[in-house]
Amino acid sequence: MEYSRNIPLLCDYYEYTMSNGYLENGLEDQVVYFDIFFRNIPDKGGFAIAAGLEQLVDYILNLRFTDDDIEFLRSKGVFGEKFLTYLKDFRFRGDIWAIPEGTPVFPGEPLVTIRAPIADAQMLETFSLLTINHQTLIATKASRIVRAADGRVVLEFGSRRAQGTDAAILGARAAYIAGCGGTACTVSDKWYGVPASGTMAHSWVMMFDSEYDAFKAFCELYPTNATLLVDTYDTINSGIPNAIRAFKEVLIPKGIKSFGIRLDSGDFAFLTKKARKMLDDAGLTQCRIIVSNALDEWLIRDLLDQGAVIDGFGVGDNLITSHSDPVFNGVFKLAAIEKNGEIIPKIKISENVEKITTPHFKKIYRIYDESGKAIADQICIHDETIDPSQPLELFDPSAVWKRKTVRNFTAKELMVKVIENGELIYELPSLDDIRKHCSEELDTLWDEVKRFSNPHQYYVDLSQRLWDVRNDLINSSKH
Amino acid sequence: MEYSRNIPLLCDYYEYTMSNGYLENGLEDQVVYFDIFFRNIPDKGGFAIAAGLEQLVDYILNLRFTDDDIEFLRSKGVFGEKFLTYLKDFRFRGDIWAIPEGTPVFPGEPLVTIRAPIADAQMLETFSLLTINHQTLIATKASRIVRAADGRVVLEFGSRRAQGTDAAILGARAAYIAGCGGTACTVSDKWYGVPASGTMAHSWVMMFDSEYDAFKAFCELYPTNATLLVDTYDTINSGIPNAIRAFKEVLIPKGIKSFGIRLDSGDFAFLTKKARKMLDDAGLTQCRIIVSNALDEWLIRDLLDQGAVIDGFGVGDNLITSHSDPVFNGVFKLAAIEKNGEIIPKIKISENVEKITTPHFKKIYRIYDESGKAIADQICIHDETIDPSQPLELFDPSAVWKRKTVRNFTAKELMVKVIENGELIYELPSLDDIRKHCSEELDTLWDEVKRFSNPHQYYVDLSQRLWDVRNDLINSSKH
Repeated sequence: MEYSRNIPLLCDYYEYTMSNGYLENGLEDQVVYFDIFFRNIPDKGGFAIAAGLEQLVDYILNLRFTDDDIEFLRSKGVFGEKFLTYLKDFRFRGDIWAIPEGTPVFPGEPLVTIRAPIADAQMLETFSLLTINHQTLIATKASRIVRAADGRVVLEFGSRRAQGTDAAILGARAAYIAGCGGTACTVSDKWYGVPASGTMAHSWVMMFDSEYDAFKAFCELYPTNATLLVDTYDTINSGIPNAIRAFKEVLIPKGIKSFGIRLDSGDFAFLTKKARKMLDDAGLTQCRIIVSNALDEWLIRDLLDQGAVIDGFGVGDNLITSHSDPVFNGVFKLAAIEKNGEIIPKIKISENVEKITTPHFKKIYRIYDESGKAIADQICIHDETIDPSQPLELFDPSAVWKRKTVRNFTAKELMVKVIENGELIYELPSLDDIRKHCSEELDTLWDEVKRFSNPHQYYVDLSQRLWDVRNDLINSSKH
Repeated sequence: MEYSRNIPLLCDYYEYTMSNGYLENGLEDQVVYFDIFFRNIPDKGGFAIAAGLEQLVDYILNLRFTDDDIEFLRSKGVFGEKFLTYLKDFRFRGDIWAIPEGTPVFPGEPLVTIRAPIADAQMLETFSLLTINHQTLIATKASRIVRAADGRVVLEFGSRRAQGTDAAILGARAAYIAGCGGTACTVSDKWYGVPASGTMAHSWVMMFDSEYDAFKAFCELYPTNATLLVDTYDTINSGIPNAIRAFKEVLIPKGIKSFGIRLDSGDFAFLTKKARKMLDDAGLTQCRIIVSNALDEWLIRDLLDQGAVIDGFGVGDNLITSHSDPVFNGVFKLAAIEKNGEIIPKIKISENVEKITTPHFKKIYRIYDESGKAIADQICIHDETIDPSQPLELFDPSAVWKRKTVRNFTAKELMVKVIENGELIYELPSLDDIRKHCSEELDTLWDEVKRFSNPHQYYVDLSQRLWDVRNDLINSSKH
């Protein structure tokens, strides 16, 4: 993990007022369970793609407070010396379970569970949400765009419109997990191995006496995989003819067969068909056509539906900011506390029924049918086990009369234990392995769940025991 | 500038392929001018608030490439040793002009102009756009939200939903420039002096045996400015009565008069009126009511229109991501090159008329009427001067027959020279001075320009000389 720029005070101030308060109230050894989960899928899609765990683990393992940080907090005049000493010696002492990055995930299920003394756990809230929310958002959006491209390469081009440096760098990482082929962001390649590429902007073309001179100079310098930007002046009458001339005069004589053009403006349905014909007529059937400008999953699908001839897409701000829905609404909620070794489930009641939390220390099983397709997730209490040799009854936790029994299924636990007593006990997969895992897991989802509009709602059920605990807590809630 | 986490390779890969190509083609001493400008105002508003310059200056002055960075680029096998040596010795050698942070700005005018040898200038593209686009976006959104709050305090609460760490930290900075009163993000206070504050989450309340115990413990520990979160269980029947009891039993006997409650769910028009009455009936007329949940400028205005009784707003993801329009579309375009000491204007033609650039090395005057209200900006060639003792003719650069002559005006140059020959020559203002400047400049705008929907379009004109240069270049363009 090369990218470790630890910022301990990137944390909401109230985490400190609360943590100081827990210590002042003698709660320093109180062990609690917090869950990170989400309620809504961006773009009203059928699922999200979990991402950001590696950065969360890095943060937790490296969280240290400098004297300077502590002096800053002391200067606020509200924190006790007990708390400031606790910060000075801080090492995370808890356990973390999480769903691995790249996994399709659904509303209501814990993506991360944190078990730790209350002050340790509370102080992780802001950063854990920030990193999981951000990368899950971008991976989820990128997955939609990659699916729209239907096998064609999608490159992430959005750094200049990203919301700050980490949005650019880690956005490229998240996009790669979800299937993008690469990025324009160089440091994402250096740090994470997301393949970076890029050729020219309009300024390159404008710096030469003519468009042809600019193309010729570029092909001579970069004969391998040259991609010429053809819309600086006039795509059809100047850009493509000049590109064809440069390919034929510089690259073809060298026997080079891999090159392309990029269009960055105009109507791509019209222009790419015209460009394809001009290139083919010139004998350059192997020349790739890349487009980039205001693309998202909807425009890509529309263009392909209209017969646009495109080999690859460069996608900018609509991907890197998840423009159409730029917030992933993960939350961090208390699920249980420990008292004398016993786990006491806790619930947050709300007038808004969807906002009532699911209490307890939990685990999640994903249930697959005989063909290997995922049919439901079941959230259970931590000590429950699903036995695939027995029939399994699933029921809708809101409409409990809707029940069905499944047989001949397989069940896989989704969460892995990542950190135990503050130590990493999980081998963080390589980025390429995460990307492969994402692709394989997507294949287990029904097409109905992957639809962009009004997808089938995947079942996330509670076990009967967990449902009973939750129901009892709702009924007994009074303060 | 404490916040200097230099990432030289946070740069689109094509900036390097181009810069290497410029050097390989003997263009290393070619001096050019690039402008950063934007075409559309987020949320279809009447203006944007410029922000991000301090971070851009920090980046430019500190841009250095490590051996590791250079080795990484060498490993790509496409960059020449001339370029790699150039990177090793890199110090920015150019000049920067910019509109100061906090200034209201309009489409088409340069926010930043960079004059430098082409490779130096080209490599700044990605980061300059990223930082100016991000902070200008957030300052612009925050300005709308602050105006909707109509004098009430707005606190930035969005870190957990920000798109990465810098989005949180610098988003808080940009929001403060535009008038937010503070942030939840602690490190934005430490680094930039944005006042951080915060009290409790629902987990605090849930960690005590009762809601009252939680409130009492909090008031005892933090008697000054305690703000109690009253919606964990039942706002009206439990939260507010328990808060009243804690205030009366703990704070009032100590003579403390500054405290408040926070509502984080429910209907704020109904609940705040009810809460106000309950607090007043209990004699706690000084108790503040703060609300937070899914707020933006529209909901804030609606709530106030409905008579909601609110003293302050905590605004989260709608502010920190500019949810309703999360991209600021600043671009970086070649405007001129120098040849033998002469400035040769350059233009980028496009089939899309709005995308044709304004060529040349330019300056901007803001024109104020006798009452001090801003009536237009005029973009001029760098060597032009507006003489306020003479009548000034303004005309619409698209509809050139629309002309008017202004007299009795004052004119202020908007851009300042920030960097000269790679050295900082401008005293970067403090964040509080930037915030004050923003507030004062906003006062010079007509209310019609500040309207949220369909605002009056502020005039951004070209001088006659500049218009002629542009028109000649359009007419003579052929390649």
